[in-house]
Amino acid sequence: MKNNFQKIVCLNSGSSSLKFSLYLMGESTEQLLQKGAIERIGLADGRFWLQDGTGHIIREVAGNYGNHNAAIAVLFSTLDERPSAIGHRVVHGGEFFTAPTIIGDQVIDRLQGLISFAPLHLPSEIECIKAVARRFPGLAQVACFDTAYHRKMPEIARRFPLPKAVWDEGVQRYGFHGLSYEYILEALGDKARGRIIMAHLGNGSSLAAVHSGLPLDTTMGFTPTGGFMMGTRCGDLDPGVLLYMMREKGYNVDQIDSIVNQQSGLLGVSGLTSDMKTLLDATDNPQAKLAIEMYCYQMRKAIGALAAALNGLDLLIFTGGIGEKAAPVRLAVCAGLEFLGISLDAQQNMSHAQIISSKKSSCTVMIIPTKEDLMIARHTRRIIDN
Amino acid sequence: MKNNFQKIVCLNSGSSSLKFSLYLMGESTEQLLQKGAIERIGLADGRFWLQDGTGHIIREVAGNYGNHNAAIAVLFSTLDERPSAIGHRVVHGGEFFTAPTIIGDQVIDRLQGLISFAPLHLPSEIECIKAVARRFPGLAQVACFDTAYHRKMPEIARRFPLPKAVWDEGVQRYGFHGLSYEYILEALGDKARGRIIMAHLGNGSSLAAVHSGLPLDTTMGFTPTGGFMMGTRCGDLDPGVLLYMMREKGYNVDQIDSIVNQQSGLLGVSGLTSDMKTLLDATDNPQAKLAIEMYCYQMRKAIGALAAALNGLDLLIFTGGIGEKAAPVRLAVCAGLEFLGISLDAQQNMSHAQIISSKKSSCTVMIIPTKEDLMIARHTRRIIDN
Repeated sequence: MKNNFQKIVCLNSGSSSLKFSLYLMGESTEQLLQKGAIERIGLADGRFWLQDGTGHIIREVAGNYGNHNAAIAVLFSTLDERPSAIGHRVVHGGEFFTAPTIIGDQVIDRLQGLISFAPLHLPSEIECIKAVARRFPGLAQVACFDTAYHRKMPEIARRFPLPKAVWDEGVQRYGFHGLSYEYILEALGDKARGRIIMAHLGNGSSLAAVHSGLPLDTTMGFTPTGGFMMGTRCGDLDPGVLLYMMREKGYNVDQIDSIVNQQSGLLGVSGLTSDMKTLLDATDNPQAKLAIEMYCYQMRKAIGALAAALNGLDLLIFTGGIGEKAAPVRLAVCAGLEFLGISLDAQQNMSHAQIISSKKSSCTVMIIPTKEDLMIARHTRRIIDN
Repeated sequence: MKNNFQKIVCLNSGSSSLKFSLYLMGESTEQLLQKGAIERIGLADGRFWLQDGTGHIIREVAGNYGNHNAAIAVLFSTLDERPSAIGHRVVHGGEFFTAPTIIGDQVIDRLQGLISFAPLHLPSEIECIKAVARRFPGLAQVACFDTAYHRKMPEIARRFPLPKAVWDEGVQRYGFHGLSYEYILEALGDKARGRIIMAHLGNGSSLAAVHSGLPLDTTMGFTPTGGFMMGTRCGDLDPGVLLYMMREKGYNVDQIDSIVNQQSGLLGVSGLTSDMKTLLDATDNPQAKLAIEMYCYQMRKAIGALAAALNGLDLLIFTGGIGEKAAPVRLAVCAGLEFLGISLDAQQNMSHAQIISSKKSSCTVMIIPTKEDLMIARHTRRIIDN
């Protein structure tokens, strides 16, 4: 089914939201036509909004969307024509999925079998896939996994030092933000040589180390809770803290889940918010300052850990909302990394230039805005073109 | 109570064991007179052994030792005279204890209040203190804490990115092996300048970073389960792994405790043993090889993380059973750290020399055998001399 131009819908479904974008994809064309979201699915006071490719709102309506099936129906009612294919962002691909995959019954069965690995996200993602199949029977759907990119990491990086039986049942370091990292590496093209660390810094934050083009290690683990401090997540933790919470405080699994995923990170330390911009603006608040300092300190240590895995560093890349926009965070992180040959150009950093390292810096530091949806559209196009 | 020579007994009590040593301490004298242990306290087939200061066994008897009180009675029956003082190794000093402390009722009360922080160790340590008080009323007893050294770390190192309420109740990074690190720093004397990482590698393993003489950070956390992979412990972990174990496997707190503390680390990965020497000897076993590689890889990453906290490294020190004796481990760890200016002298490393870095190494690498008991004897002497 070779076709010069394809309209590809990218879907990113959360437990109570459905984000989407529509791309026109061709040989030398990657045009965003629309993007939007349906929010508060299954809750009161839902909302549906739609922007054109330039960011202008073209529709915004309140409504109640009972489930993802209803949301899909609303979404596709706005399309002028049947799309060429649908690309789904899927949070967890387990051991089996090492690349984007066209979705059939067997894939859905495999995804069902992975629900215990990502119980908060996979069910709505599967529901979404099924809803599309009902709405457009026969339409090509492609699963693009956040974990797939990292599957080529060596075993010593993927393995946790837990009993072998745990490893055998698939509990290992999968890593996430893989679509973002793939996009960055494609954006780098020929420059993706040597020893690279990519820092995807958003509400969830992770780092990935690449050596000679191959994934070497990453900070996130079996779930996106692992790694270093984030917006509301704590990252890797001394397990003794959780044993204490269970034994001495009597917390059950849901309470611990809420603490480590919803109440920690920048929010937990600041006591204010998980939003970096708000914290950076709260210049008088010592707790906000501490939260930012801890975030940068932990990231600096995580960069040091991956630099040790790489035995040095040639290129450091910032991406994601915080990585692209928070100049003070980039400055604070890099300020302690002179030993890696890093030296920022303060001016370039303030103006969010593409290259923000100074000329004397032996390690290049760059900002590359990520486009995970575009990466999904690319993957989807490549698969249906084959 | 100034005295030229003091006989100081150092006690290190585990849940079912009591190790001790007897030192003759003077102005320029630090002589080990005896060391020994009572093992399998409260269990069948207990054992009591005693060595002289040169390592010759002078007594070895089987017996049943019902509790620490009985063990203390046996131990002191072997002493020719009442000791000058007793120094206790205490695993956890919480927020309050920042230095060795002479023990009175108030200290015992405070230790009782800390039991929830170290439920497996503090009860037997407190029992031991009380048994000594009954046996030798009025004898000076000094508590030497494994956590005290690290209490001067800055808040961004001590704090976990958890909700503030968790921090407020004292759940923070305390760090352990503090007596070992204090000993190393005293052994270094004037050389303890610049940016230092000390690696205490035993069945429990941790690193400590020191900057300009001040403790900066350490790998272990609220409990000795945190940090990087050890003999049977997993170190810091993605909390999502534990949530999965609780939710999907139905494990309770004791089962998780056993997994992360008893069944993981070198033992869990190799499926063979937690003993590094045995693993190094099992050259044909791929699982043993993998376990050693993971241990060295994780340690290298942890060194990189602390080097980032220090912004470089001037001195790396190996100590503890593995650190002092396992040349292949030191070699494998340092082999990926050339970016820190580290270059080992293979010959010096093989022969366990004091300085094992080569002349071209900008970072000095040393082996310094640790003597935690002697550190307890020194602390105890200094306190009773004041």
